[in-house]
Amino acid sequence: MQIYNAPLKEIRFLLEVFGYNEKVASLSQFEDYDLDSVMAMMEQTARFCTEKMLPLNRKGDQDGLIFDPETQSVKTPEGFKALFAAAREQGTMGLTAPVEYGGLGAPQTVGMITSELATATNKSFSMCGGLTHALVDALVAHGDDWQKETFLPKLTSGEWTGTMCLTEPHCGTDLGLLTTKAEPEGDAYRLTGTKIWITFGEHDLADNIIHLVLARLPGAPEGIKGISLFLVPKFDLDGTRNPIFCTGLEHKMGIHASPTCVMSLEGAKGWLVGEAHKGMRGMFTMMNAARLLVGQEGVAMGEIAYQTALAFAKDRRQGRSLDPAKQEEGAKADNIMVHPDVRRMFLNIKSTQEALRGLAYWIGVNLDLAHSHPDAKVREDADDLVALLTPIMKSFGTERGFLNINEAMQICGGAGYTTDWSIEQYLRDSRIALIYEGTNHIQALDLIGRKLPRNNGQLYMKFNEHISSFIRENKDDAAMAEFIAPLKEASKRLGQVTMNLGMKGMQDPEEAAAVASPYLNLFAYTALAYVWCVQVKAALGRGDAYGATKVKTARYYFQNVLPESDALVKIIEAGKANIMDLSVDEF
Amino acid sequence: MQIYNAPLKEIRFLLEVFGYNEKVASLSQFEDYDLDSVMAMMEQTARFCTEKMLPLNRKGDQDGLIFDPETQSVKTPEGFKALFAAAREQGTMGLTAPVEYGGLGAPQTVGMITSELATATNKSFSMCGGLTHALVDALVAHGDDWQKETFLPKLTSGEWTGTMCLTEPHCGTDLGLLTTKAEPEGDAYRLTGTKIWITFGEHDLADNIIHLVLARLPGAPEGIKGISLFLVPKFDLDGTRNPIFCTGLEHKMGIHASPTCVMSLEGAKGWLVGEAHKGMRGMFTMMNAARLLVGQEGVAMGEIAYQTALAFAKDRRQGRSLDPAKQEEGAKADNIMVHPDVRRMFLNIKSTQEALRGLAYWIGVNLDLAHSHPDAKVREDADDLVALLTPIMKSFGTERGFLNINEAMQICGGAGYTTDWSIEQYLRDSRIALIYEGTNHIQALDLIGRKLPRNNGQLYMKFNEHISSFIRENKDDAAMAEFIAPLKEASKRLGQVTMNLGMKGMQDPEEAAAVASPYLNLFAYTALAYVWCVQVKAALGRGDAYGATKVKTARYYFQNVLPESDALVKIIEAGKANIMDLSVDEF
Repeated sequence: MQIYNAPLKEIRFLLEVFGYNEKVASLSQFEDYDLDSVMAMMEQTARFCTEKMLPLNRKGDQDGLIFDPETQSVKTPEGFKALFAAAREQGTMGLTAPVEYGGLGAPQTVGMITSELATATNKSFSMCGGLTHALVDALVAHGDDWQKETFLPKLTSGEWTGTMCLTEPHCGTDLGLLTTKAEPEGDAYRLTGTKIWITFGEHDLADNIIHLVLARLPGAPEGIKGISLFLVPKFDLDGTRNPIFCTGLEHKMGIHASPTCVMSLEGAKGWLVGEAHKGMRGMFTMMNAARLLVGQEGVAMGEIAYQTALAFAKDRRQGRSLDPAKQEEGAKADNIMVHPDVRRMFLNIKSTQEALRGLAYWIGVNLDLAHSHPDAKVREDADDLVALLTPIMKSFGTERGFLNINEAMQICGGAGYTTDWSIEQYLRDSRIALIYEGTNHIQALDLIGRKLPRNNGQLYMKFNEHISSFIRENKDDAAMAEFIAPLKEASKRLGQVTMNLGMKGMQDPEEAAAVASPYLNLFAYTALAYVWCVQVKAALGRGDAYGATKVKTARYYFQNVLPESDALVKIIEAGKANIMDLSVDEF
Repeated sequence: MQIYNAPLKEIRFLLEVFGYNEKVASLSQFEDYDLDSVMAMMEQTARFCTEKMLPLNRKGDQDGLIFDPETQSVKTPEGFKALFAAAREQGTMGLTAPVEYGGLGAPQTVGMITSELATATNKSFSMCGGLTHALVDALVAHGDDWQKETFLPKLTSGEWTGTMCLTEPHCGTDLGLLTTKAEPEGDAYRLTGTKIWITFGEHDLADNIIHLVLARLPGAPEGIKGISLFLVPKFDLDGTRNPIFCTGLEHKMGIHASPTCVMSLEGAKGWLVGEAHKGMRGMFTMMNAARLLVGQEGVAMGEIAYQTALAFAKDRRQGRSLDPAKQEEGAKADNIMVHPDVRRMFLNIKSTQEALRGLAYWIGVNLDLAHSHPDAKVREDADDLVALLTPIMKSFGTERGFLNINEAMQICGGAGYTTDWSIEQYLRDSRIALIYEGTNHIQALDLIGRKLPRNNGQLYMKFNEHISSFIRENKDDAAMAEFIAPLKEASKRLGQVTMNLGMKGMQDPEEAAAVASPYLNLFAYTALAYVWCVQVKAALGRGDAYGATKVKTARYYFQNVLPESDALVKIIEAGKANIMDLSVDEF
């Protein structure tokens, strides 16, 4: 059973809540992308995802990939090639890319929605396009004119696809250790080294594959400051095969239809992108965008798992309601939706899922402001918010998404454990998201080590001002009181913890690192509380059934989920002592 | 990489802590099973598990099973047949079965340890023996003499294997709905119906398969009180094929080498076990034992995942220590064990894992007292404790075990997601344990609906007396104070919550059911706090390095894990309102 209805009503609600029309569609370059147009477009996208991508999702998982060591080629599952061609025909491969390079120039927010629908219906397949978008972003930001003119039109049309080549066998998290070399030769370079975990590093979907590779120039400084960025095509512009080969595929728990390649660069020709030794900057352009999308994967796959479990539950009868009034007359068993625990599990998913999607679109709107608003101050404020919330979206989104899929499996009992209902695939496919694009702990270190200290804590203060002004503006709204009170307390608590953490961390960085992950989660629970309040405010204004459900779901979040954050405060207080006290041999 | 060292030192420590020698080995029937003898035996078992079972674990996962629809036969992975023969030669298949029926008459505690080692090294394979043991237990308790004499020697020798046939397509949790019929014919019955989820319902490891089948006699009362128990062999005693056929296998996320069969009974001959219509009683004998072992699966697989991650981490260098004193001179990166977050993840596992194993053996010792002590009062008290703690061990053991394996995967980063390190298999294999043998929520309902009310709350009071007397006895021990204080608080809190829950539940059963799962977890955190205190007391007495590590690990539990239970109190207070307020359409 592969069940999916794109949550378009929900998406529209959230775009309204976070002021998409006023903030994004009002910008001159996005005049074609007002809310109604976007939703019409998303309806088409949803149809494509549900009708074309979803039917190949389980098949891709089961068929997997075939690597031929002799030709060093990768055969994707049957149907993927035709699917890719169909996706290309849609004309939306370069959705958010600049119009002058063949893109559609759509807002980033629209790209994020598309990404959610694609990931939900076929994560493996969607990764090829995802990486290509990331490469396009990096080239737009850092490429030379000739590089843009040469590569972007082919990438935005989907004739060619892209990759990111960062990791090496001895370095993933710690890229400063990387050893791939780039030797100058004429206008270009020759690259030598081994890269691993290269998503869609080799495949049969497109004519050419363009790799963005991190490598060191001769005499480059050691560590992270000696890394440069290169564009390395599978086929050179004259069509000759460039010696960058796939030498093997990883065997993974999930995403079986997404080739994870070991790439061997054997004097492969490449062109420098941006300045020498400044490669990490360019890579971060890609990574920040990618991290947001990875965070959304939790939402996307949580959604399809939720819908699947709901279809199962609505069809399943087992046991009687404990409330005689709810027992169906003449039936031997009631539908399991009568059972409180089944509802509890659904609400655990629903109340976090809808908040995380809200967080994503709040970030999305600000991403567009940061990229496209004419006022520098608006751009800066929006950029600060995006920078602060990206690690939270990535880490908490993927972690909670995984737990939500796990909960959906539990609802289905034994059926959830079988391939019949596909939830087991969603669980396996989603698990990688807690690891790639910077493990979740790396996100936490990014939050406490880079984002919090930036500009003397300005990012945090600006975030907090969103909450404070919301509380001020709504303090007299009686219907909001039950939500405002815990939000106020949560944000006050987060403020105190943040200050303490800053002081402890200054004295001893290990103190901060030891609690970075719980701190990120504490931040996330607070941010989601804010996102819920904003949604409730709009929901109350609607006065309809949809709004009423929103309020109930928010109530569940505040009373049944937010309390989970209490433990984090104690854990953060406990600090590093219990963690660092053991010698290595004691583990 | 399949890495496993049986935690024999830890096991011995726990057996000492929970008084195995004084309580169990002192019973006359267990005189051959004193601690030293048991540990010598377990060394042999560990060798067999590590050398024979573990090497076939990943292979079994990858090869899977072959079902031939024509012959309705199941071919197990290559090597399994020889492995089963080797296991049989060991002579320990009937480890805990009575000596008069070919068993070894070992204590249940010893069976539990064996089960842990077997599950850790090859869960799929171990399930065949597990089900056979369960059948043996049921026959010993409820079988007629001729049944015992006929079947037990063949089962304890491993010539034949056993199954439990409960579930039908329309009923799993709610067995009252089952429709399989048994019509009398001579001294026996003819059974007709379909059973699903039948573990090792068909295979090629043994000469015969003996099914314990739930079915209804003609004119039986409706519901759970009209179910009888039958013994249905694959081959009748005269060797003729009995019409109970495997018609298909489930395709599952994990335990790929354990056949999960659809069984079709087409007038299959069976013998009544125990009294007519009292089948559920017999089934519960099997299920309670099975639930304990399933709870232990979380410990078993958490252990092998922990060891695997530790081997990975001790070999992996990435980044520098934040403490300059810990930076290795001349190295470009430090071993990742210097990083606080890596240690945090290991301690999350270690501090719950060691407590859960302690809980298991505490239950184990009491299981033996309940079965074998000459004094009826001792038997009753022990039985009460086992009854109360069984749902907690099953539910929290499997849930935390799954989360622990998930944490182990995170420690390994990308490598953890690949088949190379096998953690992904442990994660997949362990996931079913939250579902089978009664889903974890069914355990919670068992706890609040059956175990708490039994004998006017005597079970809880007896459990609480263990904690109270421990606190009393150790209140002047200064070294224990930091552990005693939070234990006291936790048990007081559990007492209050239990009383409130009882009162609310009496008025409205939905109120109790809505919070049963969080309540079970609150109980588990408290029980583990007690188990840790008992361990710390013994550890302090040792005064050695092993004891010192125990104390540090306990401290982590109290300061970094136990706080997770705070949220549960609030969630239980919130009650059913937020859960039952939504109509089905609102989900």
